[in-house]
Amino acid sequence: MDVYEKSLQKHYEWAGKYEIKLRAPLESLDDLALCYTPGVSRACLEIAADKSKSFALTRRHNTVAVVTDGTAVLGLGDIGPEAAMPVMEGKCALFKAFADIDATPICLDTKDPDEIVKIVTALSKTFGGINLEDISAPRCFEIERRLIESCDIPVFHDDQHGTAIVAGAALINALRVVKKDIKSVRIVINGAGSAGIAIAKFFIALGAGDVVCVDKCGVLVDGEAYANPAHNEIAKVTNKTHIRGTLADAMMGADVFLGVSAPKLVSQDMIKSMADKPIVFPLANPVPEITRTEAIEAGAAVVGTGASNQPNQINNVLIFPGLFRGALDARAKDITEDMKLSAAMALSALVSDGELKADYILPNPLDKRVAKAVAKAVSDAAKKQL
Amino acid sequence: MDVYEKSLQKHYEWAGKYEIKLRAPLESLDDLALCYTPGVSRACLEIAADKSKSFALTRRHNTVAVVTDGTAVLGLGDIGPEAAMPVMEGKCALFKAFADIDATPICLDTKDPDEIVKIVTALSKTFGGINLEDISAPRCFEIERRLIESCDIPVFHDDQHGTAIVAGAALINALRVVKKDIKSVRIVINGAGSAGIAIAKFFIALGAGDVVCVDKCGVLVDGEAYANPAHNEIAKVTNKTHIRGTLADAMMGADVFLGVSAPKLVSQDMIKSMADKPIVFPLANPVPEITRTEAIEAGAAVVGTGASNQPNQINNVLIFPGLFRGALDARAKDITEDMKLSAAMALSALVSDGELKADYILPNPLDKRVAKAVAKAVSDAAKKQL
Repeated sequence: MDVYEKSLQKHYEWAGKYEIKLRAPLESLDDLALCYTPGVSRACLEIAADKSKSFALTRRHNTVAVVTDGTAVLGLGDIGPEAAMPVMEGKCALFKAFADIDATPICLDTKDPDEIVKIVTALSKTFGGINLEDISAPRCFEIERRLIESCDIPVFHDDQHGTAIVAGAALINALRVVKKDIKSVRIVINGAGSAGIAIAKFFIALGAGDVVCVDKCGVLVDGEAYANPAHNEIAKVTNKTHIRGTLADAMMGADVFLGVSAPKLVSQDMIKSMADKPIVFPLANPVPEITRTEAIEAGAAVVGTGASNQPNQINNVLIFPGLFRGALDARAKDITEDMKLSAAMALSALVSDGELKADYILPNPLDKRVAKAVAKAVSDAAKKQL
Repeated sequence: MDVYEKSLQKHYEWAGKYEIKLRAPLESLDDLALCYTPGVSRACLEIAADKSKSFALTRRHNTVAVVTDGTAVLGLGDIGPEAAMPVMEGKCALFKAFADIDATPICLDTKDPDEIVKIVTALSKTFGGINLEDISAPRCFEIERRLIESCDIPVFHDDQHGTAIVAGAALINALRVVKKDIKSVRIVINGAGSAGIAIAKFFIALGAGDVVCVDKCGVLVDGEAYANPAHNEIAKVTNKTHIRGTLADAMMGADVFLGVSAPKLVSQDMIKSMADKPIVFPLANPVPEITRTEAIEAGAAVVGTGASNQPNQINNVLIFPGLFRGALDARAKDITEDMKLSAAMALSALVSDGELKADYILPNPLDKRVAKAVAKAVSDAAKKQL
């Protein structure tokens, strides 16, 4: 039985990947009077007088809503709120397992950005943080931007920024392996959707001197009028040498390739056309832009993929649990650029010079140090800004 | 330290009355591949092809959202979503403790009925049931009515119907004690808010022949034009002898008094003016319309209150866990009148003729048989309708 069929069978057996566990006893009438009426009214009044006490007197300080509209679930596309639930529930299980966060899946039966913004804003007094998940581009940009404005708790679209931060940590360490400077390398990103654009912006924030974005229409160049406004925007801050043409044209002489696009778009010849010791991150999932084996045969010095059974898995689980843990611990109101950069630095720093090699640029997703180190870095960065 | 201060201290200690517990293991990379990517996509596709499978492949079959807008929390009024959370979290803890239901508190930061209806409808694909809680009248009527139409999972406003069902079971058994027939007694309900009106309607559904509702404006009489449309509506089906006047006028000669109003509105003289062997349920909380001691002194044959330290506590916890357990077990799409009546019958039947007495008309809220018996009756009633 392959992993898909086995997973389906397990989903039937689990009948839900998590459940509720009481922290307050409910064995006696006295317990009932303390946990519920009449005693509970005292905690209500305490919060009514000072709303910030909702973090201390309820579970709010430890909660995250994992919110989707089911429009861009994994590689499956717009499968709707019910069908999105197994992913959201799985994500909530990961939040608990890796960072002791009590997350709640919220699968919304609407695709209207205005409605989604209204709903999540109305929900924001219930939770300590909002993890947006699997919302299709370009709607996700507007939804995230408006929610960051309207909510006074952290709002974070993991498909954009979680991916960008892990990719950033992988880039830092791959550059350590090949001994190149982030300022002077050329980085080609294929796939200018929500993840690709967030990665491009984050790489620039990390100090990347030359990032080139490529989409189905070819290399993105400033001055062109693209249908997708996000393409015009990212073109302004990337491709400083004004490369034009196809993905193959962009890759010629490039130091880094990162794909968040579609299966099998990269040939061995394209890898061979890159600069010396190329770094190759084909992240399309489950079938990458080029396989690890093919990339190495063609001369790639460092390869990272999305696959869990290969070295250097570039997996969001390395970031989102620790990032929210740190934000909740600091009671941050936003996830700032500085918190994201600190998270990438902390993750990359977990691989020491002695351990670092082409096949070990990122810690294992199960490494218990990861969430702790990321949480501390994020919490410290958040507190510095307060 | 009184129950309020002790409860506040406990709320600080608990730091949340429940948390998440994993049902799926997350110890190995294999676990990760089954619980999350890539394996999870198989469960998503299964649900995308047949949305009803969301109940089997996720926790949906066992979940209820406890939804409030914080406008009518306990006796505290409109204290807002943050301050409502201790009650909602407590209710979720009760759902787990009494019926193994995994409930989620949702405290909405909006009071607009249109928005609340849109939000809860959009959330209805995430949960197996919706428990509306502490939403002020008359908004709660419209919100519930519209949500029952728009959602294909059970929607139940516990402050109305939960209270009505428990009061109904108490009435049935109090009438057994005093050996009177529900068809021929006169029942006075003081407080024609959401609970009072729901109780009046439910008593009529149980067979009550003469129910009289009283509010601040006095006895409700058909033909009058009240500001609250719910008052005009309930006046049409109650007060068949067209009594006019005050609460004292209505109580003269009545067999049953039930109050969901305000402290100390009923005098001993008013109890004395009632018919022989009067049944008195002063449910205002924490200070009742008349104390149990005063009522008994004045001749009450059976007294039930909301207090946990007195006999005959008329407490919603006797109904809502079992009612939702039964509805979820039957995968009911609505909570029908028949399911509610079955719940009241099942609850009252738990007190045998041998046990029944003036001071024991309802089981103890901690009695483990209660939720099971109510769930079975509700589930059976639901299945009969399918």
